[in-house]
Amino acid sequence: MESMTFVLFGATGDLAKRKIFSALYNLYVDQKLPERISIIGLGRRQLSHLDFQEKVKESILTFSRRLEHNASEMGGFLDAFRYSALDVTNSEDYQKLLQVVKQRENELEIKENRMFYLSVSPEFFDIIALNIKESGLGRTNGWKRLMIEKPFGHDLQSARELNDKLSRAFEEEEIYRIDHYLGKPMVQNLEALEFANPVLQSIWNQEHIANVQITASEIVGVEERAGYYDQAGAIRDMVQNHMLQMLMMTAMHLPEKINASEIRNEKRKVMEALRKVKKEEIQSQIVRGQYISGEINDQSVAGYKEEPGVNPSSKTDTFVAARLWIDNPFWAKVPFYIRTGKRMKEKSTRIVIEFKNTLKLHYKDNDQKVEPNLLIIEISPAENVSLQLNSKNPSKNGKIEPVRINFSCEQTGVGVPEAYERLIYDALIGDSTFFAHWKEVELSWEWVQPILEAFEEELLPLYEYQSGSYGPDAANSLLLENGFKWWLDEKIESKDKTL
Amino acid sequence: MESMTFVLFGATGDLAKRKIFSALYNLYVDQKLPERISIIGLGRRQLSHLDFQEKVKESILTFSRRLEHNASEMGGFLDAFRYSALDVTNSEDYQKLLQVVKQRENELEIKENRMFYLSVSPEFFDIIALNIKESGLGRTNGWKRLMIEKPFGHDLQSARELNDKLSRAFEEEEIYRIDHYLGKPMVQNLEALEFANPVLQSIWNQEHIANVQITASEIVGVEERAGYYDQAGAIRDMVQNHMLQMLMMTAMHLPEKINASEIRNEKRKVMEALRKVKKEEIQSQIVRGQYISGEINDQSVAGYKEEPGVNPSSKTDTFVAARLWIDNPFWAKVPFYIRTGKRMKEKSTRIVIEFKNTLKLHYKDNDQKVEPNLLIIEISPAENVSLQLNSKNPSKNGKIEPVRINFSCEQTGVGVPEAYERLIYDALIGDSTFFAHWKEVELSWEWVQPILEAFEEELLPLYEYQSGSYGPDAANSLLLENGFKWWLDEKIESKDKTL
Repeated sequence: MESMTFVLFGATGDLAKRKIFSALYNLYVDQKLPERISIIGLGRRQLSHLDFQEKVKESILTFSRRLEHNASEMGGFLDAFRYSALDVTNSEDYQKLLQVVKQRENELEIKENRMFYLSVSPEFFDIIALNIKESGLGRTNGWKRLMIEKPFGHDLQSARELNDKLSRAFEEEEIYRIDHYLGKPMVQNLEALEFANPVLQSIWNQEHIANVQITASEIVGVEERAGYYDQAGAIRDMVQNHMLQMLMMTAMHLPEKINASEIRNEKRKVMEALRKVKKEEIQSQIVRGQYISGEINDQSVAGYKEEPGVNPSSKTDTFVAARLWIDNPFWAKVPFYIRTGKRMKEKSTRIVIEFKNTLKLHYKDNDQKVEPNLLIIEISPAENVSLQLNSKNPSKNGKIEPVRINFSCEQTGVGVPEAYERLIYDALIGDSTFFAHWKEVELSWEWVQPILEAFEEELLPLYEYQSGSYGPDAANSLLLENGFKWWLDEKIESKDKTL
Repeated sequence: MESMTFVLFGATGDLAKRKIFSALYNLYVDQKLPERISIIGLGRRQLSHLDFQEKVKESILTFSRRLEHNASEMGGFLDAFRYSALDVTNSEDYQKLLQVVKQRENELEIKENRMFYLSVSPEFFDIIALNIKESGLGRTNGWKRLMIEKPFGHDLQSARELNDKLSRAFEEEEIYRIDHYLGKPMVQNLEALEFANPVLQSIWNQEHIANVQITASEIVGVEERAGYYDQAGAIRDMVQNHMLQMLMMTAMHLPEKINASEIRNEKRKVMEALRKVKKEEIQSQIVRGQYISGEINDQSVAGYKEEPGVNPSSKTDTFVAARLWIDNPFWAKVPFYIRTGKRMKEKSTRIVIEFKNTLKLHYKDNDQKVEPNLLIIEISPAENVSLQLNSKNPSKNGKIEPVRINFSCEQTGVGVPEAYERLIYDALIGDSTFFAHWKEVELSWEWVQPILEAFEEELLPLYEYQSGSYGPDAANSLLLENGFKWWLDEKIESKDKTL
């Protein structure tokens, strides 16, 4: 790997502490950092290099997936870190930064390859980009790259404005927009499941697929993020980015050549084919909800409006479900259902593909109910793939029952790189496959924009749902209208059994 | 269930002791016997009813899958048993038997439904059938049925002769030929896997299937059966019946209506389409072997010729492998490979379906080898189905590796009826689905006949193979010639890894 400088804006912030330092350290231990690398942390306050290195060390000891640490190894790693105080709006500070960068480039004989990682509040994205350009930090003989966290805009217009500003300092190919869902192993595995398995490829079409269900449910409430969340809601916090990215990864056509630009292309095509929701149809296609008090794991929890930092008359959505249609020949008749919410019954991110029952059943025992075949891709907290088939149960007179055949990635746990490690590594080697590209982001905002407006204009109900539930009943009706149900929900499945 | 009489020839024999009594008892406990049943055991020696009941009880306590026994329950069961001494060649004894049968029918108000179970040496099959007819035992107002153990003939001609004789006393619909492989849960599950799972049904064709591999390997040698085995060989002991039955169950077309006569029909069609092996081709399609000494589980074991009871210059096959073709449009280009042997490395009966690699692979890392997808049906000793897919290994930079996703029947062990329970129960209710019908038996012998002759005429080598191996190398060459290999053989797979 080429030598480089890694400039981290927001080095004293929470994300750096919890994710980024550990990710860099684990890449270092796994020999996935360049031999010669200069890492420069930036923050508002003054801090000595040594104090900064001490902070980095503490973060790693607290948050790294590795439990054993080799002191000499860590020392070598910490040597790469320098600190520079910087007020993001002060152009003189960028000149100081440029001096530090160049000095280290000289000391370490590093090429002018510069990675800028923006782990700061989104309001500073544009001013930082502008200053990188104007200070000369962005004029290099090598490459320059920008890694940037979500949120990318607050609506379609603000996203476009932000992109315009970034574009003045960085080319699209130089911008790595992080969507950490794209760093999750099972999301990255989606394409492999399809392209490396003839048996899955053969059934991966609308002749065989009845519907696709994408769930991202959380048990937690807003926690300390109420200030941000009450302005964003689930629609911005989850749907515009993570949910639509998972939908793209599931629905995209496998390109002939699997590389970043082809995949970008195919994801864009999915978004272009995604049927726009007209405002007058929103009520029938989108469900929004807000949690009220309830019980989770036998503990009472407060409703959203009672959460500290939330406006007591808030109309913010903490749950969104939607039925989506992809208007291309491949997916024309296959509904996609998505749902995401806070304070739900379980923490689970999963994709369930329900296959059509194309069987002609002429079995002796005709009242045997045969469940559909399901492909279940669990993304978190567990990582595994299962296929639900029907099989005779030998202890029940050969009654046919669904059985789930599943494999977990055996090498989960400490051995598996976290999303941030994967994504930072990919950015270091210049592979943008698993990043959100501008056209995807823009098309996602375009799809979401009328929904944002409908929410503001109160064109659809805001359903209450109990904490600890699977969201409002209206989210079940979305599927029932097409003769389906959400799979794997205990609540619904146990209801079924009592019918 | 209708009341009936169950007449057991060979009631003092080994099979009765080890399998049949326990099977009847477990059916009784599971309430799968008729409320009114008369069970009459027959043997050469004199034995009182009570002594016979005591023998039955002992057998159950020793061999039943149930570990807990309820004394009062067992008493009620044992009450159904009577004993009658019978010399199978003495027609007077059949008159005595008829009296016992009728007396019990009267006592218990049992209809004249009579099941005759022949657990005796095959040389007596015809004389018993004849006497059942001539004694009047077979003239009933109800139904009569014959259950009969293997072997059914020693070659094509003797099988036909036997069938002719049985036919004089019983209609084909009244004859239940036991092949206990057809009683195994996973063999009975084969049709369900296909007809109840649209995703498997879709790939169950020659567009997707590369080949089918059926293995039945044993660790044991001839044990106490040398006298019989040295005359039979693996070709008669395993291939003509069990291996070809498993092939039929795998290859048969699913009928519109799944019932005994339709399945019989479809199995017959498979055998009719099975390409005959011409004598001059036998050497290239069939491999025969005989085990020599070797090591199994770190223990030295003797070669076949050293086994007690075996002719020291024996040319008997203890291993047979074959490549078979089914000349119908469905399977035209799909080779079926079978192999069976004694003293092999592991005890395993399994069917492996290898899928074609129809993928166009344009992945970044082009030297990634992708293994084929496999459907693995383990019949014994484990009972499970697995699907081998390819998936990214998250701890190896997303390298694509095969993962096996499998489900075991959770309810294995004491809760699961044994093959004999299933088969006896089916015969009691008159369901002949999982029995070997005459046309299947005849066509199997027709297919095997030229091979028997070639063995006798020494038209092909008798390869030696070490005890504890996977058989002679020639059995691997059979597959290699078509670009395949036996899956799941440790030996072969570890060889691969060192390549």
